[in-house]
Amino acid sequence: MILDGKQIAGEIQQEIKQALSSGHTRMPCLAVVLVGENPPSVIYVNRKTKACAEVGIKSIKKELPANIAEKALIEEIEQLNNDPAVDGILVQLPLPHHLNPMNVIQHINAEKDVDGQHPENLGKLFMGDTDTFAPCTPLGIKVMLERSNIDVSGQHVLVIGRSNLVGKPMAALLMQTGPGANATVTVAHSRTKNLKEIAMTADVIIAAIGQPKFVTADMVKPGAVIVDVGINKIDDSTKGTGYQIVGDVDFDAVKDKCSYITPVPGGVGPMTIAMLLSNTYKSFLRRQAIKSQT
Amino acid sequence: MILDGKQIAGEIQQEIKQALSSGHTRMPCLAVVLVGENPPSVIYVNRKTKACAEVGIKSIKKELPANIAEKALIEEIEQLNNDPAVDGILVQLPLPHHLNPMNVIQHINAEKDVDGQHPENLGKLFMGDTDTFAPCTPLGIKVMLERSNIDVSGQHVLVIGRSNLVGKPMAALLMQTGPGANATVTVAHSRTKNLKEIAMTADVIIAAIGQPKFVTADMVKPGAVIVDVGINKIDDSTKGTGYQIVGDVDFDAVKDKCSYITPVPGGVGPMTIAMLLSNTYKSFLRRQAIKSQT
Repeated sequence: MILDGKQIAGEIQQEIKQALSSGHTRMPCLAVVLVGENPPSVIYVNRKTKACAEVGIKSIKKELPANIAEKALIEEIEQLNNDPAVDGILVQLPLPHHLNPMNVIQHINAEKDVDGQHPENLGKLFMGDTDTFAPCTPLGIKVMLERSNIDVSGQHVLVIGRSNLVGKPMAALLMQTGPGANATVTVAHSRTKNLKEIAMTADVIIAAIGQPKFVTADMVKPGAVIVDVGINKIDDSTKGTGYQIVGDVDFDAVKDKCSYITPVPGGVGPMTIAMLLSNTYKSFLRRQAIKSQT
Repeated sequence: MILDGKQIAGEIQQEIKQALSSGHTRMPCLAVVLVGENPPSVIYVNRKTKACAEVGIKSIKKELPANIAEKALIEEIEQLNNDPAVDGILVQLPLPHHLNPMNVIQHINAEKDVDGQHPENLGKLFMGDTDTFAPCTPLGIKVMLERSNIDVSGQHVLVIGRSNLVGKPMAALLMQTGPGANATVTVAHSRTKNLKEIAMTADVIIAAIGQPKFVTADMVKPGAVIVDVGINKIDDSTKGTGYQIVGDVDFDAVKDKCSYITPVPGGVGPMTIAMLLSNTYKSFLRRQAIKSQT
């Protein structure tokens, strides 16, 4: 069965839109910082600001030159930290090579870090503190599984990939106690030696390794749940564009062996955006509550 | 073969003692905060301060009443944060139930958090930043494996237990890129359903679940490496004390099936203390370097 991320994301966006439609004196505001003009980043940022507009979240797009100095970028971030009208700050990754993303992200006020990339927020996430911002892609996958009534408690979840954006926080989210979690989690990666053997014991496979069709049917236990985070361009002369977008899973071969699978596109991607809206809304509510207390 | 944590810890302590024996204008200083009189905590704190003395690290023991208010405890911590003579601060866990450990630990200056429990340090550890303080027990296990020439790269490491003190940071340390890491890591726990099946695929098992003799021989793949973090008291009428200390592994049954195993006591425990000294020394050097720059 298809795990329809697009539909679930649509429902969540509708819920946020509804909640924002009355009773608030101002709109939530998300600031998105885009350094340079990396084409996929431009596309992602546009999707995010468009989604904001659809639900009633204001967005500010800060477009900065690719050759900006780290110090100047940090100053831009600090302006957004200090702006009381800004509820969330997202720095679109990857950054140009001369900028150290860890240095830069650390300067975002952790309380406005709706992308969940600040080390303090990742640390809290890892410690099981649910009152933090989780990174949008892994949070979106967790919510998608929950809303699809797929219970991972006690199940063996294999996460393939160990990025700070997806693999590691995905593992951290699912290994905690609490609803939607309590999974036994394995993190595998490019150095893993016996991947097939481990994969065959997995009830859920989350592929986030960035290699087209990496997860093949012989790695999948019958009835497993498959979540595909990959977005890979491969040559395809039959398409007008000359390429097609495929995930990290060999969808056609795997789809009949597993119980659930996310499509690419239309699976994880829309959930990522829905969680960015949800985190921004959460920050907005929290900041309004603090304001009303003082 | 026995993984002799006691001997490796002794070598590390000797190295620190040697390094501190000349060329420094002051001794490093560790402050240990002990709230109440929980007997194992009293024993651990005494071991730590004794080890400090042996290598030439000054220690301050702050013994506070069990009924101290959270605010007062935090004030004590802030005094230590502000004391330029203090290089490291350790709050001995567990705390009495009326105190929230996450709240308390967050008030330690992250740069003096030699026990590696501050969310910012855990977040950095999780992100793969090696320039942070890792919690002493998992760091000690990593160092013990490295110094025993046991290479975990590409190996499947099963961590049983998901505490913030051991299981989760252990997994985080071993899944990163870099020397002594690059392992495929599984975190299992009390909710895990198919533990034996997963354990049989593990090249290394790290048991930190707090249940006496939980890991039995039928869970161990021949030739696996076994690290036992458990310290459990069980009744034993043949002993004068009426009890004996056993680990989380059924040592006698497992020892002939595995390639390496840590004893309890004398395995992981001494490494934990050696890493506390090592982290304190690291903080001392860093703080001296900063001072000499300004």
